[in-house]
Amino acid sequence: MKYISLLGATGSIGKQTAAVVREHPQDFKIVALSAGRNIDLVREYILEFKPELVSVQEKSDYDQLKSEFSKEGITFTYGDEGLVETAVYHRADVLVNAVIGSVGLFPTLEAIKAGKDIAIANKETLVTAGHLVMDAAKQAGISLLPVDSEHSAIFQALQGEQEKNIERLIITASGGSFRDRTREQLAGVTVEEALNHPNWSMGAKITIDSATMMNKGLEVIEAHWLFDLPYEQIDVLLHKESIIHSMVEFHDSSVMAQLGSPDMRVPIQYALTYPDRLPLASSNRLNLAKLGLLHFAEMDFDRYPCLRFAYEAGKIGGTMPTVMNAANEVAAAAFLDGKVTFLGIETLIEKAMNHHTVIAVPDLATIQEVDESTRQLVHTLVKER
Amino acid sequence: MKYISLLGATGSIGKQTAAVVREHPQDFKIVALSAGRNIDLVREYILEFKPELVSVQEKSDYDQLKSEFSKEGITFTYGDEGLVETAVYHRADVLVNAVIGSVGLFPTLEAIKAGKDIAIANKETLVTAGHLVMDAAKQAGISLLPVDSEHSAIFQALQGEQEKNIERLIITASGGSFRDRTREQLAGVTVEEALNHPNWSMGAKITIDSATMMNKGLEVIEAHWLFDLPYEQIDVLLHKESIIHSMVEFHDSSVMAQLGSPDMRVPIQYALTYPDRLPLASSNRLNLAKLGLLHFAEMDFDRYPCLRFAYEAGKIGGTMPTVMNAANEVAAAAFLDGKVTFLGIETLIEKAMNHHTVIAVPDLATIQEVDESTRQLVHTLVKER
Repeated sequence: MKYISLLGATGSIGKQTAAVVREHPQDFKIVALSAGRNIDLVREYILEFKPELVSVQEKSDYDQLKSEFSKEGITFTYGDEGLVETAVYHRADVLVNAVIGSVGLFPTLEAIKAGKDIAIANKETLVTAGHLVMDAAKQAGISLLPVDSEHSAIFQALQGEQEKNIERLIITASGGSFRDRTREQLAGVTVEEALNHPNWSMGAKITIDSATMMNKGLEVIEAHWLFDLPYEQIDVLLHKESIIHSMVEFHDSSVMAQLGSPDMRVPIQYALTYPDRLPLASSNRLNLAKLGLLHFAEMDFDRYPCLRFAYEAGKIGGTMPTVMNAANEVAAAAFLDGKVTFLGIETLIEKAMNHHTVIAVPDLATIQEVDESTRQLVHTLVKER
Repeated sequence: MKYISLLGATGSIGKQTAAVVREHPQDFKIVALSAGRNIDLVREYILEFKPELVSVQEKSDYDQLKSEFSKEGITFTYGDEGLVETAVYHRADVLVNAVIGSVGLFPTLEAIKAGKDIAIANKETLVTAGHLVMDAAKQAGISLLPVDSEHSAIFQALQGEQEKNIERLIITASGGSFRDRTREQLAGVTVEEALNHPNWSMGAKITIDSATMMNKGLEVIEAHWLFDLPYEQIDVLLHKESIIHSMVEFHDSSVMAQLGSPDMRVPIQYALTYPDRLPLASSNRLNLAKLGLLHFAEMDFDRYPCLRFAYEAGKIGGTMPTVMNAANEVAAAAFLDGKVTFLGIETLIEKAMNHHTVIAVPDLATIQEVDESTRQLVHTLVKER
C-alpha cells in the first residue's frame, strides 16, 4: 500500500490521480489532499477516500468543512500553510504535486526536505527554480517522478539505459488548439476556441499554454532539469496525434519511444508504481492499425515564439526562466479573463524578459521576489493596454 | 575488448557485423569466422581482421586458403565440423550466428554448451528447435541476444521492465516486395521483382521470406521462444516504412517502441554492447519530420497465408515448426532457382505440413530426421510439378 498526499486534488491531474487510486484501492490510499475552491468535490473526496488531512484555499471553506465533518476525525487546514502541511504530511510516502503555477515551489521543497518522493505534474516549479529543486532532491536522496506525459515517456524510455549514451531527447508537440492556423489567423481568436484542445482534456491554463506553445517551452526547461541535459540535446517535434508521447535518441542512432492513447492516468499511475506497472483496465488500448497514420513535422519557431522564449530563458538561466514563467502565468490568466488578446500573451512575456536583469544563481528568496515583481510588472502592463 | 566468433561472415548480416567491428577496433575483435563459398571476401577478412580460425564450406577452398596463408599462423578448417569448431572457438566470448537456415542449429547448441553468449540472427535455429535451444541456454546460463531488428526492438523495449507486466508484443511488418499487389497479382511475379525489398537490403532467402510473409511467421515463433510468451500475446502489424521496428504493450496500456532508420548494424551492435551502447557515427539518424508520415494497417492473414501457417505451426508445436521451416527453405530456394512459382511456395509448405504427423517433444535427432525427411518430400514435390 502506497500512501499519497495529493496537492491540487480538484484540478485535472488531481481528478485523474483520484481515478487511478479508485481503480487500485489495494495499492494506493490518499491520506492527505489539498484543493482550491471546488468544495463540492472536496466533500465527495472526503466521503470516498477518507483522507486524514484536508487543506483548502480559503478560511471560510475551512470553517464550513470543519463543522460539517466534525465527527470524522479529519484534520482540516487552509491557505499557503495548509498547502505545506499537506505536502509534508507524515503518513504520506509520496507527494503528487498537481497544483498549477509556481505556487507549488515552496511546498515541493518542504516535502523534499521531509523525505517524500515527489510525483511532479507541476512543471512551473521546475521551470522557476529547477536548480533548487534538483539540488534538494539529490541531497535528500528522494525520487522525482515525472507525471507530464512527455517526461514520463522519456523516463520510461530511459529505463535500463545509461545517461552517457543519450544523443538527444525528442519531445513531441501536438501543436495545440490553433495548429492549423497561420500567425495571421491568430489575431482575433477567442478564449473558447483556445480552450478546445484537439487531443487532451486538460485544465484551462495548460490548454492556453499548449495553444501558445509555452507549454512545450516549460516542458523543455523541465526536461533540462529532470534529465540533466543541455538545451542543445533537447528537440521538439510536431506530432499532431499525440500518440508518441516523446522519445530518446541514443548515440548508436537507436530511438526509444513511449506510445499510447492520450490518457493522463497512464503517466500518473506509472509515477506511483515505478519501477513496476499495474494493470489499467479502463484505459483505451492503442490501436495503430485503426489510426492508420501518424504525422510528424518540424517545429516552427517563428510560428511559435513562446517556444523560442523558453529556449532563450533556459539557456540564459538564473532568474530568467522565473521571469518567463511568472509573466506567462499572469498573461495567460489575463487572456482567460478577456483582458488581453491571444497574441498579447507573447508580447507581455517578451516585454517582461527584456525588462529583466538576470541574477545568475538565485536563492529561494530571490526567486520569490523576482516572481512577485514580474507578476506586478505584467499586471501593470495589462492595465495600461 | 570483446572477442567474436562469426558464423556466416560473408552473408548480409556477416558483412554488417564486420562493419560494426571495423568501426570499433578498440572494442571488438573477430577471432574466428566461417563462410560459404565467397572466398575472395574471406581473403579480405583475413587481411583486415587477422582471425585465428577460419572455416569454409568446401575442402577445395580450404586447401587453397591453407596454402595461400601458410605463414600467418591461421588455423583453417571446413565443412560441418568447421562450422562447429568456429562456433565453440575457445578465445571467443560471443558467437554471432548469422548463417541461414536450420544448419545453424547444431553449432548453436554446441556453442551454448561451451558457455558462449549467442547473438542470434539465425532465426531458423529457434524456429526449428526453440525448446532445445532455450533449455540449453538456461542450463548453461548464457545470454541469447537477438539480432533481428524486430526482436532487438522488443529486447530494448523490455529493458528495465518486468515480464509479468507484458500485455502483448507487436511485431511490425513492412509487407515485403509485393505489399502493394493483390493476391491475384502475385501469380506471375518474377524472382527479380521478389528480390527488390522496399526498405531493407538483405540476403536473397530472407527477402523472399519477406515477400511471402514467412519471414514474419518465423519471427513470431522466434519471439515466442526468446520472450517466453504464448502466441496469443504476439501480434503482427503492417507498417510499411519499417521505422518502428517493433513494440511491447504493457498492461497499463503503455507501449514501448524502438525506432530507427532501417540499418541492421544497430541491432547487431546492440547485441554486442548490451546492456551498454556505443556510438555508431556512420548510421543514418532518424528524421521523423523529414519522413512526415508513418503508416499502419491491420495484418491480412488471407493475403499472407504463410503467416497463418506459422501461427498454426507454432501453436501445434512439437515438430510442426521444423516441418514448416524445412519446407519453406526448400520451397524458397526452388523459387529462386525458377523451379516453382511464387505462390507455389505456399502450396509446398501447406502440403508438407498437412502430410506431417506431429511428434510432441522431439529431441535433436528427431528434429534432424524430420528436417531431412521434409526436405526430401518437398524436393520430390518440386520435381513432380
